Amino acid sequence: MEKLKQLYEGKAKKVYATDDENFFIVEYKDDATAFNGEKRGTITGKGVVNNKMSNILFKMLEANGVKTHFVEELSDRETLVKAVKIIPLEIIIRNVAAGSFSKRYGVEEGRALKAPTLEFSLKDDALNDPLINNSHIIALDIASEAELKVISDMAFKINELLKNYFANIGVKLIDFKIEMGRDANNNIILADEISPDTCRFWDAKTNEKLDKDRFRRDLGNVEEAYQEMFKRVNK
Amino acid sequence: MEKLKQLYEGKAKKVYATDDENFFIVEYKDDATAFNGEKRGTITGKGVVNNKMSNILFKMLEANGVKTHFVEELSDRETLVKAVKIIPLEIIIRNVAAGSFSKRYGVEEGRALKAPTLEFSLKDDALNDPLINNSHIIALDIASEAELKVISDMAFKINELLKNYFANIGVKLIDFKIEMGRDANNNIILADEISPDTCRFWDAKTNEKLDKDRFRRDLGNVEEAYQEMFKRVNK
Repeated sequence: MEKLKQLYEGKAKKVYATDDENFFIVEYKDDATAFNGEKRGTITGKGVVNNKMSNILFKMLEANGVKTHFVEELSDRETLVKAVKIIPLEIIIRNVAAGSFSKRYGVEEGRALKAPTLEFSLKDDALNDPLINNSHIIALDIASEAELKVISDMAFKINELLKNYFANIGVKLIDFKIEMGRDANNNIILADEISPDTCRFWDAKTNEKLDKDRFRRDLGNVEEAYQEMFKRVNK
Repeated sequence: MEKLKQLYEGKAKKVYATDDENFFIVEYKDDATAFNGEKRGTITGKGVVNNKMSNILFKMLEANGVKTHFVEELSDRETLVKAVKIIPLEIIIRNVAAGSFSKRYGVEEGRALKAPTLEFSLKDDALNDPLINNSHIIALDIASEAELKVISDMAFKINELLKNYFANIGVKLIDFKIEMGRDANNNIILADEISPDTCRFWDAKTNEKLDKDRFRRDLGNVEEAYQEMFKRVNK
């Protein structure tokens, strides 16, 4: 498959067209941003970790019945994926209070939630990715009620699979953000990435943070945390 | 029923105990606040309008099968109501984009929504009444899933009844905020008020604002708008 023109450059990835309109090539960068782009930096080796970790996790999810955009890893930083139109929603599942949830509702970070929560943010940098609920999504024609049911069921299933997967390698899955897209047949499939950029991972024994919060909060050992997570996943 | 000690003073109302624990007396004030208390003022006569208008609307809703806290109007500013424990949620229905919705999602004020939306804000001044969704409400033990179904069904029914009622008096119901409470038997009933403080009312012909936005946005003729709405409702 030939890599053709760049279609899109995001904060952490570039997406390229290929000579087949049904496929894109994703290229993972080392660039890191936080707080809607206000903080910027580089995490050396991040692109390789996020590419390879996402692919391992997508394969695990596919094996358990979750449809994803993953096709084939092409290189350390490049992966061939199915072409989808991204639904402009950040789909966020939380098992434990942390980050913006803790701040928004005044709930101490680390408090386990009675049940996992699902929330959506509208992907819109100019509006600062505002929280949005199902009735808003329907009223603004972002997704239909039937699609929201599919998205919600998939998100909770992915949470169960990931929680178990990470528990087996000594990691608590605190929360994560995923994105989904519509393929050529308007089926909704998992897209984007699953990595320390998009999840909160805490060591099961020490609660040490092994994710992008080390960069956001200037905790040090940022590269080491990404490598440690990769080591545990890549066994 | 005797009016005993003050239980609570809010931004626009005071609530008193009575000699029967099953009933409260609500007293409506002329005090006006906006933007979470940042802006303060007085709207002369507002307390009388909001008391009497709420009571007329509660009676109309009761006649159509909606349970409310209304018992009896005691004076121009005072009403006897059933004692409830307020559920700490602002329950907001929108028919047309306006106010914080327009700002949050970048949608032009006045755009009709494809379907009415329902959203919740957590009543917490210190947190600035953040938007909160069903899964958060359940996870934080604010209301159960079954209660949320009752609240949602009631809210949409109230919207249909109010929309029709106001259409008949030449007013578009743009959006409104209600509150609900649990009575002694844990039944959920409509409480609080329905008034130009808590609804957006636009004249059906001219789109003139007949609600608290005249105060919030310094549009002038604030008292006149409240009196005009009361004149139309009190026929």
